[in-house]
Amino acid sequence: MKFTLYHSCITVLDLEKSMKFYEEAFGFKEVRRISSDDGSYEIVFMADEGDVTMLELTWYRDRTEPYDLGDNEIHVGFRVDDYDAAYAHHKEMGCICFENPKMGIYFVADPDGYWMEVVPTR
Amino acid sequence: MKFTLYHSCITVLDLEKSMKFYEEAFGFKEVRRISSDDGSYEIVFMADEGDVTMLELTWYRDRTEPYDLGDNEIHVGFRVDDYDAAYAHHKEMGCICFENPKMGIYFVADPDGYWMEVVPTR
Repeated sequence: MKFTLYHSCITVLDLEKSMKFYEEAFGFKEVRRISSDDGSYEIVFMADEGDVTMLELTWYRDRTEPYDLGDNEIHVGFRVDDYDAAYAHHKEMGCICFENPKMGIYFVADPDGYWMEVVPTR
Repeated sequence: MKFTLYHSCITVLDLEKSMKFYEEAFGFKEVRRISSDDGSYEIVFMADEGDVTMLELTWYRDRTEPYDLGDNEIHVGFRVDDYDAAYAHHKEMGCICFENPKMGIYFVADPDGYWMEVVPTR
């Protein structure tokens, strides 16, 4: 048996808003969608072209309250080829960011408050 | 700028136990570790050999209470080449599992209660 990481899933309150965020912030596009027969949920897989591992956005029609993210520090990490340009881009977008200069990484909050970590490609 | 998914991070209460779980359940090995100077945290990256995307386990020495995972449905997905063998293996291990036969996937709970999704390689 060979297991390989395939996707990271987050549940989102506003699918359009989250898709727009991941398009603008990370250049990700919709690569696959699963729609429920009754309209109660939509699942959208996003990635950059040619990527194998994807981000999965799950949306429930009947969810109206913001998600409780708990007190854990779950996050998703992205490599980027131009770290400084990425950080400038996210700040220009008005995203909430915080940097860990010692580790040479930063985090950016998505519309639901999930933290996305950005790491330079080494 | 080119962003690529790099890792999924979870915070774990018992690092040894979690590492053992991901070794036994998914065949993952430690590929990189970041240790704090004062022993207050350990960060272990795990993956199968040759994999680019990794699972990051973050452990804090001073954390004694189980993590609150909130009410979202965050999870990490794995592809596997032999779905039936994987499911049998996880049940044999005594893991809490639940299957979604309609979607042809199942979920397995890790020691902290995070759900890991298993999807057949298509």
